Amino acid sequence: MIAILKPGTTAQQTAHLLTWLKHMNLDVHVSEGKEFTILGLIGDTSRVDIELLSSLEIVESVRRVSEPFKQANRKFHPTDSIISCGNTKIGGGHFAMIAGPCSVESEEQIIEVATAVKASGAQILRGGAFKPRTSPYAFQGLKDEGIRLLLEAKKVTGMPIITEIMNVRSLDLFQEVDVIQVGARNMQNFDLLQELGKTNKPILLKRGLANTLQELLMSAEYIMSEGNEHIILCERGIRTYETYTRNTLDLSAIPVLHELSHLPVVIDPSHATGRASLVPSMALAATAAGADGIMVEVHNNPACALCDGGQSLTPVQFDSLCKQVQQVREVIR
Amino acid sequence: MIAILKPGTTAQQTAHLLTWLKHMNLDVHVSEGKEFTILGLIGDTSRVDIELLSSLEIVESVRRVSEPFKQANRKFHPTDSIISCGNTKIGGGHFAMIAGPCSVESEEQIIEVATAVKASGAQILRGGAFKPRTSPYAFQGLKDEGIRLLLEAKKVTGMPIITEIMNVRSLDLFQEVDVIQVGARNMQNFDLLQELGKTNKPILLKRGLANTLQELLMSAEYIMSEGNEHIILCERGIRTYETYTRNTLDLSAIPVLHELSHLPVVIDPSHATGRASLVPSMALAATAAGADGIMVEVHNNPACALCDGGQSLTPVQFDSLCKQVQQVREVIR
Amino acid sequence: MIAILKPGTTAQQTAHLLTWLKHMNLDVHVSEGKEFTILGLIGDTSRVDIELLSSLEIVESVRRVSEPFKQANRKFHPTDSIISCGNTKIGGGHFAMIAGPCSVESEEQIIEVATAVKASGAQILRGGAFKPRTSPYAFQGLKDEGIRLLLEAKKVTGMPIITEIMNVRSLDLFQEVDVIQVGARNMQNFDLLQELGKTNKPILLKRGLANTLQELLMSAEYIMSEGNEHIILCERGIRTYETYTRNTLDLSAIPVLHELSHLPVVIDPSHATGRASLVPSMALAATAAGADGIMVEVHNNPACALCDGGQSLTPVQFDSLCKQVQQVREVIR
Amino acid sequence: MIAILKPGTTAQQTAHLLTWLKHMNLDVHVSEGKEFTILGLIGDTSRVDIELLSSLEIVESVRRVSEPFKQANRKFHPTDSIISCGNTKIGGGHFAMIAGPCSVESEEQIIEVATAVKASGAQILRGGAFKPRTSPYAFQGLKDEGIRLLLEAKKVTGMPIITEIMNVRSLDLFQEVDVIQVGARNMQNFDLLQELGKTNKPILLKRGLANTLQELLMSAEYIMSEGNEHIILCERGIRTYETYTRNTLDLSAIPVLHELSHLPVVIDPSHATGRASLVPSMALAATAAGADGIMVEVHNNPACALCDGGQSLTPVQFDSLCKQVQQVREVIR
Repeated sequence: MIAILKPGTTAQQTAHLLTWLKHMNLDVHVSEGKEFTILGLIGDTSRVDIELLSSLEIVESVRRVSEPFKQANRKFHPTDSIISCGNTKIGGGHFAMIAGPCSVESEEQIIEVATAVKASGAQILRGGAFKPRTSPYAFQGLKDEGIRLLLEAKKVTGMPIITEIMNVRSLDLFQEVDVIQVGARNMQNFDLLQELGKTNKPILLKRGLANTLQELLMSAEYIMSEGNEHIILCERGIRTYETYTRNTLDLSAIPVLHELSHLPVVIDPSHATGRASLVPSMALAATAAGADGIMVEVHNNPACALCDGGQSLTPVQFDSLCKQVQQVREVIR
Repeated sequence: MIAILKPGTTAQQTAHLLTWLKHMNLDVHVSEGKEFTILGLIGDTSRVDIELLSSLEIVESVRRVSEPFKQANRKFHPTDSIISCGNTKIGGGHFAMIAGPCSVESEEQIIEVATAVKASGAQILRGGAFKPRTSPYAFQGLKDEGIRLLLEAKKVTGMPIITEIMNVRSLDLFQEVDVIQVGARNMQNFDLLQELGKTNKPILLKRGLANTLQELLMSAEYIMSEGNEHIILCERGIRTYETYTRNTLDLSAIPVLHELSHLPVVIDPSHATGRASLVPSMALAATAAGADGIMVEVHNNPACALCDGGQSLTPVQFDSLCKQVQQVREVIR
Repeated sequence: MIAILKPGTTAQQTAHLLTWLKHMNLDVHVSEGKEFTILGLIGDTSRVDIELLSSLEIVESVRRVSEPFKQANRKFHPTDSIISCGNTKIGGGHFAMIAGPCSVESEEQIIEVATAVKASGAQILRGGAFKPRTSPYAFQGLKDEGIRLLLEAKKVTGMPIITEIMNVRSLDLFQEVDVIQVGARNMQNFDLLQELGKTNKPILLKRGLANTLQELLMSAEYIMSEGNEHIILCERGIRTYETYTRNTLDLSAIPVLHELSHLPVVIDPSHATGRASLVPSMALAATAAGADGIMVEVHNNPACALCDGGQSLTPVQFDSLCKQVQQVREVIR
Repeated sequence: MIAILKPGTTAQQTAHLLTWLKHMNLDVHVSEGKEFTILGLIGDTSRVDIELLSSLEIVESVRRVSEPFKQANRKFHPTDSIISCGNTKIGGGHFAMIAGPCSVESEEQIIEVATAVKASGAQILRGGAFKPRTSPYAFQGLKDEGIRLLLEAKKVTGMPIITEIMNVRSLDLFQEVDVIQVGARNMQNFDLLQELGKTNKPILLKRGLANTLQELLMSAEYIMSEGNEHIILCERGIRTYETYTRNTLDLSAIPVLHELSHLPVVIDPSHATGRASLVPSMALAATAAGADGIMVEVHNNPACALCDGGQSLTPVQFDSLCKQVQQVREVIR
C-alpha cells in the first residue's frame, strides 16, 4: 500500500502518522521527494482502513498495490479452482449448463422441466423455493415445500440442484441441496456469508446490482475466510440508466474475474436482460467470453399461450441454445 | 393498473389473459381502441407481478396507477407520522440532530462525545457497535460490548441511542436501544425487515446504494406490513460514476419522499460525502430542503492531530453547524 | 401514445387538454374507467413533447405505444440495411473487421499497421486524425495531416478508411474518407448530425457514454431525417460505477438494436475495456451475440517494449483474434 | 504525478520508461522500495496521457498529485472569480436569480415573464431560442427570432439575458447576448468550447449528464486556455437509475467545485428534477449549500389551466421562492 502525503505536511504530523501505522504492525518505507513524501506500507495491509487513511487531512491519496482479497486471489492460487456440484464440476475447463424454472410451482412442473433440460444437456437443475421480492405482498415462493419438490426432481433425474437461501435460520433445510445460491440483494449480507463459510457446500454468489467486481471478490473472501473454498461467482446484470433491458449484463466480468481470481464464473442472462428474446445471444456471448457456466430460466407450459414471452425459454429454445453453446465452446477451447 | 396490449393480439389471447387476471380477484375494464386494447385492472393490484405481466408477448406495457405501497403511502395517511425515539420526536415538524462517533471505541470516548454533542443541541446519540465492512479482515466493531457502552452513555447523558443491527440473531441485544438502524446493504434483507416488523422499536431504514426511492418505500412496507409503523427513512448517498465524493447525496429524496409518504426523512451527509469539509454545506442544504433530521459523525480526539480530516466533524465544528441548522429551520418554517 | 389522467380531473380540464391535443392534428380516443380516464392519441405523435405532457398536473403518466424513431425503425423497414463502405459491406450478413492504430502518427506507422491488419483479414482501416481529448493540453491528433496519411495508406493497401469528425467546419477534409465516425461525446451534437445527414457518406455513430439505446436511435434518426440512410451504430461502453474496466461494454445492445432497427451494429471493445487483455474475449462475445462488425485498435511497435499493454493489440494478437472471430461467425450463422 | 511500477519490472524496462518520460521534459524522481518502484514525475504533467501511462504492462497505477486543470484551479487563483453579466455580477459573494421561460414563444410572453420575474428580484433573464431536442421532429425553438425577442425583453426591462448556443456557426447571433449558455450535451463539444474561448463573453457551462466534476473543470479549462476567463459552472442533474426525478441533482457539486476552483457555481433545479413541486426545496437547498446563483424556469399562462404543472414555476411561486432564498442567504453569510 502506498500513501502519498500532501505538500506542506510537517515532520511532526508525519511522525504521528508513522507511529499510528507501526502500531498496526506495518513496516513503513519513507521516500521524500521534492514536492511530496511517499510512504510504502509493508506487511498485512488488508486490515488497514483505506477510506480512513485516505481521508486524513495530510494524506493526498492512498493506493493499494496488492489486492485486498487473498484466498480468492489468483496470485496466490494460480490454477483454476474446480468446484464439485454433486456429480458434476464447474471451472478449470469444466462447463455447466444450469437450467430450470424461475419458481418451483408443483411436482409435475419441476419434474417435467428437469427431465426436459436434462435431455437437452443441462447438468444442474435450478429452481426458486425462497424468492426475494421487492414487495411484501408478492408471492414469496413455496419455501420448504419448494425445496422438497426440488429434491424429488433430483431423485427422479439424478441432477444436482441449486436454490437460493435468504436467511441463516433456514440453513437446515439446505442439507441435501447441492449448491446454495446467494442472491444479488444478499451479496453483502456479511452475517449470512460467514455462516455459509462454516459449511462445506458449494456457494453460487451473485454480484449485487451495484457492486464492483472487487466487492464481489471481497464477499467471496468472507465465505472463504471461514473455511469454505467452494465458491462460484455469478454475474447477473448491474443497474444502469438503460431501461430497455431490466439490467445491463456486464460480460467483461468474465475475463476480469478470471484475471483476478481462480474461482469459476457463471453468467445468468435471464435475470440480466428480463427478456427471453435476448437470452440466447447473451448466453452465446458469455460462452465465447470464456464463462464456466450459464444459468438460464426454462419453463414448460404447452397449454398456456400467455406464458410465452417473459424471461424464460421454452424447452425447445433451450435445446437449440445448448447445441450452439456447445459449438462455441469448441471454438474457444 | 393499466395494461396495454400489442396490436395484433387475438381475441383468444386476450380471453386467456382476462381469465388469468380474474383468477387474481381483479376486475378488468377492457377498452378497445383503433390500434390497441387497454385493460384497466381494478382491485388489489399490489399482488400482481408487474415484471411478469410486462414480459408477456402480447403485452406492450404495464403501468401502475396506484403506488405498490400502502401503509407507507401518504394517500392513505395524509398527516405526517411523528416517530417517538425515547424522549424525543422526529417528523411532523419535530426535527432531530443525531450525532456521535462512527464506531464506539471506549467508554471514555462515547461519553465524551455524547456530552459534547448534547451540549451543542443533539437530541439522539449515534455510534456503531456492529460495523458492516467490505473486507472480512477489517475491524467489525465492539459488538455487544459496543452496545453496553452506548447504554452507559445513555445513562450518563439521558440521550436516546441509535445503532445498527446486522442480523436477526442479535436482536436480543437491542432491547434497550431506542432506535434500530438498518444499513444500506441490508435495505433489501427482507427477512431482517420482517423480524423488525414484529418489534415495536423505531427503525431508521437507510436507502441502499443503488435503490430507487420506491424500493426504499417498499422496504418500509415490509416492516409496516408486520405491524411496526415506527419507520424513519434515511438517504445516505447513492452510487454513481462521480469519484470525488464517496457517494452522491440525493437531496431530492426529501421532497419526493414527503410527497409519496407520511414517514419522516433523515439525511446522513457524513457517509454520503466521505469528507468532513463537505458535511456542513450538505447538512444545511438538507435542512433547507425540509429534512426531518440530520445524522452526522462527530469524533473527539484532542490529542490526535492525525484524526482531523476524515468524514467526522470535531465537536467545535458540530456546535457551529447546529447553530446554522437552527437558523435555516426558522427560515423554512 | 397513451395518456392516463389522474383521478379527480374535471371535465373542463379534460376538455382543455383535448383541445390542445387536437391542435396538434391528433385524433384522441377517450376511454373513461371507474377510477381513471385514458386517452389514446392517434396520428403523428412523434412531434408530441412527452416530457411536457407527462408533467401536466392532471396527467398521471404517458406511454408511447409506437417508438419515436421512424426511418431507423425495423417495423417500417423489416430487412437488414447493408451499408457499403468503399469496396466492403456491413450488415445483412456482411461482417467487417475494422482495425488500425488509435492515432495516426506517421506515414510509416499507418502503412505498416494497415498492411499487417489487411493480411490478417481486416476489411476497413481505422485511425484517429482528430482526437477528442478531455484536456486542452493533451495531443489532439495530426488533424488534416492525419487524414492525408490515412489516404496514403488507402492508396497503398486498397482498404477503405474510417476516421472521426469533430466539427462541421472540417467536413471538406473528409471528401475521400469512406466512413465518417461520430464519437461518443458528439452523439447528441445535433447540428453536426444534421450536416452529416446532408452528405451521402456512411456514418459510424457511437453511443454516448450515458445514453440509452433509444437515444442512440434518435440520433441516427437526426441523420436519416436529412436524407442520409447509411448509418452504422456502434456500442463502445457506457459509464457505470465499475472502475476495473474503463467503461462497461453493453453487449445486449446488439440483440436490442437488431430488434428495434434495421441498421448494422459494430462493437468497439478497445475503448470499452481500456485493456488489451480483455479485448479478445469481448470481441468474440460480440461476434457470438451477432455483431455486424468489430472495431479494434492495433499498433505496431516492435522496437518499443513499453508500448506493450495499453488497449491496443499487437498485429500477432490481432491475427489470432481474426481466426477465432471467423470460427465463431460460422457457429452462429 | 506518481507512477508505481509492478514488482518484477526489469532494469531495462524501467530505463526505457525513464527515457520516454524525459522526452516529455519531465524530471523523474525514482524511489526503489522492497516490493515496488515509485516514480515521481515533476514538471508540466498536464500533457501526460494518464490513461496510456496507466495501461503500460509494467505500470501498476498512476496517480496525479496535482489536478490536470490550471486556470480553473483555486490553488493558483485563491480568491473567488466574480463574473460580470451585463449590469449584474455572479460569484465572490454576488448571488443571482436567473429566471425565465423554458422556450421563448412570443414577444408578449417573454416580456410578460421578464417583467414579472424582475419584479420578484430576478437579476438575469433566461429563455431558450435554440433548443437541443432528442428527436429531430420536436420543436427546436424560434432560433434567431427567439434571440431577437430576448433582446426586446432586455430593452424593455433592462435585464441581461442568457441563452444557449448549439453550434459555432451561429455565434454572430449572440453579439448582444450577455451570457452564452453551453448545454449539458455540448459540455465536451471541444471545438465549440475553443471558439467560445476566443470571445470575451461570460459562458455558463452546464455539467454533462454523465460527467464528473473534474471533467466539467477540464471543459472550463478548454475555454480558459483560449483566453476567456469568464466562466460560470452549472450543475443541472446527472443521470442515475432513479426514475421519479428526471435526473439526480448533485448538490455536493457546490462545495466540491468551490474547493477545487475559483469559478462561481449556479444550480438549475428545474431541469434536474423535471417537476415544479420539487423546485423550491431544491433551490433553497442549493442556496444553503452556498450556490452563487439559481436558474429556474418560470412561465406565464393565466389563460391556460393545463400548463400548471410541468417543471416551470408560476410567477407567484417564483416570487415566494425569491423571498425564502433571500432569507437563507442571510443565514449562511
